[in-house]
Amino acid sequence: MGEEDRAPSEEPSLDPEDWESFARDAHRALDRCLAHLQKSRSRPAWREPPDRMKNVPPLPGAGTPRADLIREVEGEILPFATGNTHPRFWGWVHGTGNAAAFLGDLYASAMNSNCGGRDHAAVYVERAVIEWCRTIFGLPQEASGVLTTGTSMATLIALSVARLDALGPKVRADGLQGSTPLVAYASGEVHSAVVKALEVMGVGSRGLRKVTMDTSHRLDPASLRSALEEDRSRGLLPFCVIATAGSASIGAFDPLNEIADICEEQGLWFHVDGAFGAWARIAGAPWAGLVEGIERADSLAFDFHKWMYVQYDCGCALVRDGRLHRSTFAERPDYLVSSQAGVAGGEPWFCDYGLDLSRGFRALKVWLTLREYGLDRLGRNVAKNCAQAQLMAAEISRRPRLSLALEPQANICCFRFRPAGAPEELCDTLNQMIATELQKSGEAVFSTTRVGGRLMLRAAIVNHRTTAEDITGALDAVERTGARAARAL
Amino acid sequence: MGEEDRAPSEEPSLDPEDWESFARDAHRALDRCLAHLQKSRSRPAWREPPDRMKNVPPLPGAGTPRADLIREVEGEILPFATGNTHPRFWGWVHGTGNAAAFLGDLYASAMNSNCGGRDHAAVYVERAVIEWCRTIFGLPQEASGVLTTGTSMATLIALSVARLDALGPKVRADGLQGSTPLVAYASGEVHSAVVKALEVMGVGSRGLRKVTMDTSHRLDPASLRSALEEDRSRGLLPFCVIATAGSASIGAFDPLNEIADICEEQGLWFHVDGAFGAWARIAGAPWAGLVEGIERADSLAFDFHKWMYVQYDCGCALVRDGRLHRSTFAERPDYLVSSQAGVAGGEPWFCDYGLDLSRGFRALKVWLTLREYGLDRLGRNVAKNCAQAQLMAAEISRRPRLSLALEPQANICCFRFRPAGAPEELCDTLNQMIATELQKSGEAVFSTTRVGGRLMLRAAIVNHRTTAEDITGALDAVERTGARAARAL
Repeated sequence: MGEEDRAPSEEPSLDPEDWESFARDAHRALDRCLAHLQKSRSRPAWREPPDRMKNVPPLPGAGTPRADLIREVEGEILPFATGNTHPRFWGWVHGTGNAAAFLGDLYASAMNSNCGGRDHAAVYVERAVIEWCRTIFGLPQEASGVLTTGTSMATLIALSVARLDALGPKVRADGLQGSTPLVAYASGEVHSAVVKALEVMGVGSRGLRKVTMDTSHRLDPASLRSALEEDRSRGLLPFCVIATAGSASIGAFDPLNEIADICEEQGLWFHVDGAFGAWARIAGAPWAGLVEGIERADSLAFDFHKWMYVQYDCGCALVRDGRLHRSTFAERPDYLVSSQAGVAGGEPWFCDYGLDLSRGFRALKVWLTLREYGLDRLGRNVAKNCAQAQLMAAEISRRPRLSLALEPQANICCFRFRPAGAPEELCDTLNQMIATELQKSGEAVFSTTRVGGRLMLRAAIVNHRTTAEDITGALDAVERTGARAARAL
Repeated sequence: MGEEDRAPSEEPSLDPEDWESFARDAHRALDRCLAHLQKSRSRPAWREPPDRMKNVPPLPGAGTPRADLIREVEGEILPFATGNTHPRFWGWVHGTGNAAAFLGDLYASAMNSNCGGRDHAAVYVERAVIEWCRTIFGLPQEASGVLTTGTSMATLIALSVARLDALGPKVRADGLQGSTPLVAYASGEVHSAVVKALEVMGVGSRGLRKVTMDTSHRLDPASLRSALEEDRSRGLLPFCVIATAGSASIGAFDPLNEIADICEEQGLWFHVDGAFGAWARIAGAPWAGLVEGIERADSLAFDFHKWMYVQYDCGCALVRDGRLHRSTFAERPDYLVSSQAGVAGGEPWFCDYGLDLSRGFRALKVWLTLREYGLDRLGRNVAKNCAQAQLMAAEISRRPRLSLALEPQANICCFRFRPAGAPEELCDTLNQMIATELQKSGEAVFSTTRVGGRLMLRAAIVNHRTTAEDITGALDAVERTGARAARAL
């Protein structure tokens, strides 16, 4: 029957006409993916995408044969990934991904579950992941949680619950217009995601007060006390303290117990931003000590795609008072009312704990990662990354042309190439050149940050593939590239 | 070397010790996934997950052999998916997923890209998808866009830009406290995601005014005008009109051009919620006519995981004024400053267009879907689903025991089993029973909603696998189950 003869209701499905040929293509694609995973080390840590990829292909009115698309993906997309699967990629805080999670992604894509709610297996997988996390972080049984794209979204969720706690449920109807100005507190190392969350929430970035830090970039509890007092006397309404457990820039950990004491005493919401650092909790001594007190959090935001080495994207929000969490977000129209039985059963529904109503099946890749490797082994990898940052710092101290910005508290090491006698300004330029040149050569990926106003190379090690040799080898490359760049300047 | 002898920095990676054995497992898993995709029709449309899945396994301290986990996933998780891959699943608005997107998920998981920014292939794939969508929906070249988890998040992004447009960039610092109360407008069919977005934004649900609808549940432009006038005279600040292009409950389409006229005339932001309905645009006559005027939107939110049949989750926000979009969200700390070259190049960065800083590679599954099938064929599937809803309505009109709630405007058909002489209240109970029984038997998945206060069976057809026989077969099952339930009552 020709296309023109078909009634509109008889247009064929999008399923492959020939499943066997599709299966052959899929198995070949899988082999390419497996090779990509296995050979992370043999590729450069980063390669610039080809120019032709940067042009937008014409609007795809007609279809393209699968074989052509596969060739395009494997030739021009797959080889030019971000690079974070490479053992010497330490830029920003990019997790590595892992093989168990890869299988999880495979099954999840075949299932195509919508985890907004209802009664099906994916929901129970997500509940298990959350329950394990609740236990790991020592929150009580009445705590709740929800998987998110990442800590940015988890922060928005957590701070929204904090706001409802401060202003009462009427804030959902009335909003902030006309209410006493809210203020949240955090150290200067607070992540920009917190600022963005407060902006979106209508609290505004001025509603975030950055509290003085000690020399290790940790929030100073005495300064927090005086800031609170001062703001109250100005008629503002302090509602939340955000402790940073592992700052993105230099890896600082706030004193959680001391902050929790103040929050308890003053009736303030205690939120912990533990995007990667929360996982120090499972790394044993001395690293677990960095997050002592995390179990006192009213809410906690963290990622799996950083230090649990799970594929992008997946984070989590945990809230001590599950009832409060639900009353911040539950909002269901007639067509979503749940029932006692059938698909519409299975309360509670995750859509009542955050913003997304349709939710992908992120939980399976996490579930498989935690179960296949186990927390002990994952914790040893977290400890390994911390030990590697210490090793990097020790190596830097031994090399006269390298200068450490500050002792790593956990897994982030900031330093710079500073040959004897070179002016500080020149070193800023030089180190930016080093970062870029190393990326372009694919030898290693550092990102940069500023410490004390000076541009630093920065390694955030959340990479299970990194070895001790990668650390020393990359420092050799920094010195080599630095010397060459210095001559060129 | 025993585990105890290793320095912490020498803990082995999480990579498989034996890649060949991992490859064998992965290929077997792929075969199971392919069978799951291919045999959607031969499974029940839904099966209740086994009780043992509902128990949370103990905290996974030690690892579990991969073979055991695979057995568990394939035996107890994979077969108990939501059911939306089945040809007779029409509950809520759950897309079906497709084979091209499955390959996309496979490659994306191997690449593990972070699409928050930087210079790598995944970012260009996302830009292409957005550029195609900009073209499809007729927005100008200076428009911007970002992929999101779904329309819920895209709505939050779009309304945040609308707010900044109304109050100026100072809203980012000052928040809403002290500002004139904002009001947004929408019909009573507005999605709960809009309410949730306004709540999170601190505007509050009272900042959403529901405008009178006509008998087809479409926003009435004259009523919008009077509501605007009234609110202005009360000292409120109207800032945005949200038009619904395909309401979730009954599938109503607001008159976009008439609303756009009012917005233009009164300087209001014109947002279109086109979660699924936006795609009527590519379905040809008469369906494309439902969204005439969508090209005039200041912002547009829609999903790929519904009517583009892409795997969960993926939605998109498009904003007419890209500069305004960026100034609502751009906020980058030192460690994220971009550079001219290297990994940190590649401006613009997507993290400056939304809340997430870490972003998964959602774009590839969309890119492959749009390119493999092409917009023409995808559009014919959208048209097919609309024709199937009309077919369902026509069949219902022919069957004396079934009663249509209202004529479907596109792909959503609401109706109920109402045997002659049965009281309306009893029919509410009866139809809830029918929905649940059909789900439990796995014959078909309808969800329910209320129209005019009465409980209706509701089919939202965004399913490329549905055939005309599925429509009539499911109605037979409704009548059979209804008759049985009526006897049992």
